[in-house]
Amino acid sequence: MNPRLIKLVSLFLSHRIDACLVVCAENIRYLAKFPAAESWLLVTFKKAYYFTDFRYGEEARQGLRGIAVRQYKRSLIQELFGLIKKKKIKRIGIELRHISAETYQRMKAQCPRGVKLIPLTGLVESLRVIKEPEEIKLIRDAVRINLNAFRYLKGVLKEGMAESDLLKRLEGYVRRQNVKFSFDPIIASGPHSSMPHAKTGDKRVSKHQPLLVDMGVDVQGYKSDLTRIFFLGKIPPHIREVYEKVKEAQARAIAAVRPGIQASIIDQQARKYLKKKGLAKYFGHSLGHGIGLEVHEAPIISSSSPWVLKTGMIFTVEPAVYLPKNFGIRIEDMILVTPQGCQILS
Amino acid sequence: MNPRLIKLVSLFLSHRIDACLVVCAENIRYLAKFPAAESWLLVTFKKAYYFTDFRYGEEARQGLRGIAVRQYKRSLIQELFGLIKKKKIKRIGIELRHISAETYQRMKAQCPRGVKLIPLTGLVESLRVIKEPEEIKLIRDAVRINLNAFRYLKGVLKEGMAESDLLKRLEGYVRRQNVKFSFDPIIASGPHSSMPHAKTGDKRVSKHQPLLVDMGVDVQGYKSDLTRIFFLGKIPPHIREVYEKVKEAQARAIAAVRPGIQASIIDQQARKYLKKKGLAKYFGHSLGHGIGLEVHEAPIISSSSPWVLKTGMIFTVEPAVYLPKNFGIRIEDMILVTPQGCQILS
Repeated sequence: MNPRLIKLVSLFLSHRIDACLVVCAENIRYLAKFPAAESWLLVTFKKAYYFTDFRYGEEARQGLRGIAVRQYKRSLIQELFGLIKKKKIKRIGIELRHISAETYQRMKAQCPRGVKLIPLTGLVESLRVIKEPEEIKLIRDAVRINLNAFRYLKGVLKEGMAESDLLKRLEGYVRRQNVKFSFDPIIASGPHSSMPHAKTGDKRVSKHQPLLVDMGVDVQGYKSDLTRIFFLGKIPPHIREVYEKVKEAQARAIAAVRPGIQASIIDQQARKYLKKKGLAKYFGHSLGHGIGLEVHEAPIISSSSPWVLKTGMIFTVEPAVYLPKNFGIRIEDMILVTPQGCQILS
Repeated sequence: MNPRLIKLVSLFLSHRIDACLVVCAENIRYLAKFPAAESWLLVTFKKAYYFTDFRYGEEARQGLRGIAVRQYKRSLIQELFGLIKKKKIKRIGIELRHISAETYQRMKAQCPRGVKLIPLTGLVESLRVIKEPEEIKLIRDAVRINLNAFRYLKGVLKEGMAESDLLKRLEGYVRRQNVKFSFDPIIASGPHSSMPHAKTGDKRVSKHQPLLVDMGVDVQGYKSDLTRIFFLGKIPPHIREVYEKVKEAQARAIAAVRPGIQASIIDQQARKYLKKKGLAKYFGHSLGHGIGLEVHEAPIISSSSPWVLKTGMIFTVEPAVYLPKNFGIRIEDMILVTPQGCQILS
């Protein structure tokens, strides 16, 4: 078993399980180091089993190291319970957040006598939250390409271009770097930027208006997620003022990042400052989110976050002010928690 | 309420519900004619409500027609049950397949007294399965672009190109048509084609070997999904023989398509023929699947499919033969059921 699987198994005793069924594709990818497709991973004390069907069997056998492939024919659940009976497994942890209510009901109905399904939440995620050096490297690569994409965009940006034109240019750039977007980019000009998740459309870039670009790329499964505000021409003073306050809110939040501090305090640093400036009511979302194999993963950085920061966590810090029908400013960077405090990756 | 919502409401009585909670993004998109993002749709006899948070509120209010937007602050479930109590709703249908087991448990725990959650499966999908003229038009558009992409690929294909080179060319082509892929294309050369869902890699195209290309595009949410086999140079007789048998299996299946026939019989037509030729054991998946807002949706065309074909259904017919470590042949077309029988869209 690889070190990640061993770490997972070491959590079995405290959760009183003797196996864990992993259904979340990113969790399987993390544990098996193999991009899962419509498959389940059963991890027992001694061994891990990858359940897949005919379509993915050959590929899985070629790609997986030290994990048995169980190719099922009719019913994944039957195949799974067959193995569980054979191996005398009694208590199986189930990823309740990732399994559909329908599948869970079906599993409960077919569960062999003496076997218990134990709802679990966030077990594999609790490993993923601390990034290993090889993961940090891939995220750094994604961030570097992302920043280059912003530079490229700055170079081609001209008055009168439509958001969708810019998107096409950006797509071309990202493709030439041999990577993919990690989500559909948000390119929002002027009043459009006041919608936190605006859809890129036909609006044209005009002078003296902010252009918000929120994008990420994917390098071997690892994501970036960054937001910048671009300007053409002079920045009107009322926009500059808001921009600088958002920037200062971000700086205050980042300055507080260090191992051992609560994530909720990081959020408060930014929010408190914006409140003092009368802008907190225009900042309706959390300050940030963990990022890695998923664009949004643990730890959440919000006022009610239960997380305590630890070395190796990577998350976004993205304070924002959205003035409805007017304009929006969001500045999003990615932060790595280090023993000394933190490093801004972007 | 729009006609699709009215159709859904007309199913309430027979399912003994007085509201339906729609959580599947494609189902919401279908009913609301608006691309949903992390939102839920509650449909009652009189009115539909779109639940979303701060990030998507402004956009939803601008984009939705005749559907109320409920922007929630803390808890979607609380906001939902608040409205349900106010409207005196007693029996809410829940999309069990699309809601996570965790969220469903939480809903059950918070469910107000006198309100019942009724598990439902495939209610909105049962509407989506019959395509409306405007949907058929978009799917036709997707198929047309897809076929043009195959033509383009045929033009640029040269010996020695890597699968990943071809993927890049294809990406460029699709981007220039202003559409997106509906899934990561499969470009599999030679022995690689024997894996039904091979990952496009660095394998190079060589002469006398099949090159399998499985791709789809997305036009305003509506998908295509087609597979072609390309050849460079002479087709070796043993490959040609398999190709022609797969082609014949497909022809037999398609010849049987008409309203009123069981989908399982369509699958049998192809499978029976391949069995006679000793090839059925190399055809491990279903014959096809419905397609529309999702690449895979109802009706499934398999030996155990419960569906009966009706005019307006659109699905793939994709018999295949995979000879492990040798080569694979899959031919995939898209079919529209018509009053007279069917039309091959591709």
